[in-house]
Amino acid sequence: MHSLPSQAMRPLSLNPSLSSSRFPFFSFSIPIFHKFKSNPTIYKKLQKGPPFLTLRCCSSGSVTAKPSSELRRNRAVQEPDEKVVALRQLFSKPGIGIDAYIIPSQDAHQSEFIAECYMRRAYISGFTGSAGTAVVTKDKAALWTDGRYFLQAEKQLSSSWILMRAGNLGVPATSEWLNDILAPGGRVGIDPRGSDVPHSPVMYAYLIVEVDAAKLFVDNSKVTPEVMDYLKNAGVELRPYDSILSEVRRLAAEGANLWLDTSSVNAAIVETYKSACDKYLMNSGNRRKIMNKGNGEFNGLSIGPSGVYMRSPISLEKALKNPAELEGMQNCHLRDAVALAQFWCWLEEEIHKNVKLTEVDVADKLLEFRSKQDGFLDTSFDTISGSGANGAVIHYKPEAESCSIVDPNKLFLLDSGAQYVDGTTDITRTVHFGEPTAREKECFTRVLKGHIAVDQAVFPENTPGFVLDAFARSALWKIGLDYRHGTGHGVGAALNVHEGPQSISYRYGNMTALQKGMIVSNEPGYYEDHAFGIRIENLLCVQEVNTPNNYGGIEYLGFEKITFVPIQTKLVDLSLLLVEEIEWLNKYHSQVWEKVSPLLEGSARQWLWNNTRPIAKQ
Amino acid sequence: MHSLPSQAMRPLSLNPSLSSSRFPFFSFSIPIFHKFKSNPTIYKKLQKGPPFLTLRCCSSGSVTAKPSSELRRNRAVQEPDEKVVALRQLFSKPGIGIDAYIIPSQDAHQSEFIAECYMRRAYISGFTGSAGTAVVTKDKAALWTDGRYFLQAEKQLSSSWILMRAGNLGVPATSEWLNDILAPGGRVGIDPRGSDVPHSPVMYAYLIVEVDAAKLFVDNSKVTPEVMDYLKNAGVELRPYDSILSEVRRLAAEGANLWLDTSSVNAAIVETYKSACDKYLMNSGNRRKIMNKGNGEFNGLSIGPSGVYMRSPISLEKALKNPAELEGMQNCHLRDAVALAQFWCWLEEEIHKNVKLTEVDVADKLLEFRSKQDGFLDTSFDTISGSGANGAVIHYKPEAESCSIVDPNKLFLLDSGAQYVDGTTDITRTVHFGEPTAREKECFTRVLKGHIAVDQAVFPENTPGFVLDAFARSALWKIGLDYRHGTGHGVGAALNVHEGPQSISYRYGNMTALQKGMIVSNEPGYYEDHAFGIRIENLLCVQEVNTPNNYGGIEYLGFEKITFVPIQTKLVDLSLLLVEEIEWLNKYHSQVWEKVSPLLEGSARQWLWNNTRPIAKQ
Repeated sequence: MHSLPSQAMRPLSLNPSLSSSRFPFFSFSIPIFHKFKSNPTIYKKLQKGPPFLTLRCCSSGSVTAKPSSELRRNRAVQEPDEKVVALRQLFSKPGIGIDAYIIPSQDAHQSEFIAECYMRRAYISGFTGSAGTAVVTKDKAALWTDGRYFLQAEKQLSSSWILMRAGNLGVPATSEWLNDILAPGGRVGIDPRGSDVPHSPVMYAYLIVEVDAAKLFVDNSKVTPEVMDYLKNAGVELRPYDSILSEVRRLAAEGANLWLDTSSVNAAIVETYKSACDKYLMNSGNRRKIMNKGNGEFNGLSIGPSGVYMRSPISLEKALKNPAELEGMQNCHLRDAVALAQFWCWLEEEIHKNVKLTEVDVADKLLEFRSKQDGFLDTSFDTISGSGANGAVIHYKPEAESCSIVDPNKLFLLDSGAQYVDGTTDITRTVHFGEPTAREKECFTRVLKGHIAVDQAVFPENTPGFVLDAFARSALWKIGLDYRHGTGHGVGAALNVHEGPQSISYRYGNMTALQKGMIVSNEPGYYEDHAFGIRIENLLCVQEVNTPNNYGGIEYLGFEKITFVPIQTKLVDLSLLLVEEIEWLNKYHSQVWEKVSPLLEGSARQWLWNNTRPIAKQ
Repeated sequence: MHSLPSQAMRPLSLNPSLSSSRFPFFSFSIPIFHKFKSNPTIYKKLQKGPPFLTLRCCSSGSVTAKPSSELRRNRAVQEPDEKVVALRQLFSKPGIGIDAYIIPSQDAHQSEFIAECYMRRAYISGFTGSAGTAVVTKDKAALWTDGRYFLQAEKQLSSSWILMRAGNLGVPATSEWLNDILAPGGRVGIDPRGSDVPHSPVMYAYLIVEVDAAKLFVDNSKVTPEVMDYLKNAGVELRPYDSILSEVRRLAAEGANLWLDTSSVNAAIVETYKSACDKYLMNSGNRRKIMNKGNGEFNGLSIGPSGVYMRSPISLEKALKNPAELEGMQNCHLRDAVALAQFWCWLEEEIHKNVKLTEVDVADKLLEFRSKQDGFLDTSFDTISGSGANGAVIHYKPEAESCSIVDPNKLFLLDSGAQYVDGTTDITRTVHFGEPTAREKECFTRVLKGHIAVDQAVFPENTPGFVLDAFARSALWKIGLDYRHGTGHGVGAALNVHEGPQSISYRYGNMTALQKGMIVSNEPGYYEDHAFGIRIENLLCVQEVNTPNNYGGIEYLGFEKITFVPIQTKLVDLSLLLVEEIEWLNKYHSQVWEKVSPLLEGSARQWLWNNTRPIAKQ
């Protein structure tokens, strides 16, 4: 599964430097968009069909909210613009007075995957993709999303919405569009303020680390006694989630400088801290203290508390897996491979018996196989199970009521993953149950060539991931093809399936170097609109390569595969592969057999044998 | 020959936004560094040995200045730090009072190749490379240069200079170093203020384009009657070079907004314009005019004249060659190829006759062959003629008195180019006259693989050049090798041999897309310190590729070669080349034969035949 680096689709930044911008910026909240707060839920049991979550209303009682797919179906029934009209009516209310309102995807923690209760953008627009920003003005409504979601957004948006295909030539950014549309002096509203997250074993919390203390702001009820004990022993103090702002105020009043992560801090914290810092300076006792410090001059370094706005060092530390995390990732990937071999064996048999299976049936069966594996907790994201044209909807999520039958005569794309106690998996395979066309084979083979080029890359330390992105596309570019998503994202170890700061992407802003111990996905693809989708995804671990030279006195790095599931050779056009690429495929399959066959028996083992046989040019 | 994109080695920017920076910035001139002004000179005749230029002193009379090579030799004789000591004595003079002084390479036009009279950095440091910044503090002297020049700078700097190997891990930028070294509040001096340039058919001039007028500020004596007539007919008015600042003042006084190119405008123009704008606002009549304009409010758009600091649109227009320029480039490259075939044929014969030739003899002979070609004007840069270890000095410039004999048993690297009336050439070939070692062959072959990968690349429109850079390095990276320069630079058509804005480089800041009609060099290399240097360089023209698909509804681009000179197949390790790469080499050589052989006769034609024969794996 892919992500885009965080600069993509980001709504207007709330970075304090914007305060002096020519574009007036106004922040307030419209309560309609966050009246629910969900219970943290981890699916421990297999569920048929899309899950209904029980949500707790903050103020009173309990309601049952439907998942996002329901939102879409309801929209078809009711007047499509009711919500937009209601929102616009709020624009001119006393104390508000705005000309446009921005609805981002993110919650207060700038999360990518968010709790149902925070899906404000999906609620207002009907578009349920993971990335997108909606903007409503007095007479226009527009939604920005990226190439992974163009087809999905076309389907989900009503005609009163303008779809902004971000990244396409001539498509303005949100801010550019607003600058064009609004009269000078126009006011724009946004609610950037924010259970926890389905598929990700994390909870909403804030952490403040001081020189001699650490405070975790979290709802007590989410913390098990074991975790509570662990935190206590580690010297971490628990505080109520909602007390974060008062603590920020207290720190400012003490004159503390705060390091705030620009990539994720929310506006409430920044604004609270800034106004508390101003208050600190208005206090004449504090001013005296400053004057007496140093040489008595204001030298720009000691005029009171101030924020340091930089990326948190924690995200990089988290990305560099320690040996225990790496071992856990490797182990859970072998168990995951067992489940996948059993699943593909089952699916091929069913299809060949002419059993009609929907895309959701197939995803459910995969979950059933995975849930039998030791340490299984949950899927790591909504399974993307797309037959034929649905495979071209890059983040397609089949719904039981509306999804397709898996067509034996079309390509079938399956992108799925699991959370285990010891790691997180994410894998995509594309298969054909019958006879692929020459076109399908050519496209598949060129995607495979890109996959192999990234897998085999060797590069000097300090190389940012985007440098490798063109390796994945080169074979497609030669015949005028491409794909509209990045090639790789970081993956957490028993954490979020999309994890920064590294990525391999054609968005060239992310200068984070690939470093030893990082996990990254390798998932080039090709999508032919209304026809088929192809993606081949393994997870890779960055490691040192023992090169015969070390020019520049530095290390040269490469990748080690941690995913071991066969790639369907039936889809390979051998005439397009170099001898070296065929050798790569044969070697990979021999490793798959070696590592996974000891964990299998019966027909699944036979299936693995059949699907790991070497191939050769005639 | 390579360049680095302009952000490399740039001294502290004089961008007006710096005025509020924490780092105090002070601008003044020390006259010692620019008391000469050179006569424009184009070498129409062949000269033996390094040319001595006659320079005209601005204030009085005439002196004879020696070229930069002389500066170096003089340093060995005199007390090495005399100049630095003299400079430091100026630091504390009344009205100066600085703690450090920055000496950039550039002249007032931020040129890369500069007139002798402006070589201030070479004068103070002894280092004569084309890129570098010297900084002198009260007790330290440091010189920054990039990987192309590490070896050269090691040789040329005296022990009192610290060599800062820019781009190496842990090496601070000029500004970082100064921030570390200087006490808070320290003051830094710089003289950024400035025919004309050897090897480039250009002259020092400023141009102001107004809505209905164009003014060229240039020394009248440099303009021939024909050019004068042409400019008159084109409506371009000639003004004295030195009157640029008074014209800037006049425009500001009229309330004119100026578009100033951030990449090249000098500080004198910016400061003159800004203070004239301030003066404009102090005039009460002007203030009334502004208040009466529009709605009578200061709306931030009409409060007086102001600068627009953006890259000039001219540089991109210049980079996109028109059909006449492309034809000229192609034609002059064929004539250049004739001279090179004659040259290589001659050189091989001489070496095999055991004639001892120095690196300078060889460069002179090449100039002799080139000067016989129609339309030849000059070399396009100082010929890099390096035998053995000298080839590893990336911008090596042999000097008659000190250079090496071309060793028949070592690799010989020759990077050279010419200015013709219809175009500019730039080509590098590396050859061996005897038996290359396995190591030399492996390195050469991997450089060739990178060269082929760039040459054959297909990429979507809007792709910045740096995306292709890794293609050139990939084969070297696999065995832990790399090179410390960019892969390609733009080339002017009968203009500067290094021309922006495009580049193919591992410095990822240059977002300029490669576009149809651009010329770019393709010159990967490998340099083994104190042993040998390898570089293979052709010029390429960006053109549309007729791909079977056009995903995204856009064009896919690729390259057409315009350089046609054999690549020495003796240096190829066939076992390392793919069949497709061997085919590339054979096809290229067959094109070379087809295009160049009709223009040759005798032994040179035979040489071309011998050196364009196809090769094959056994």
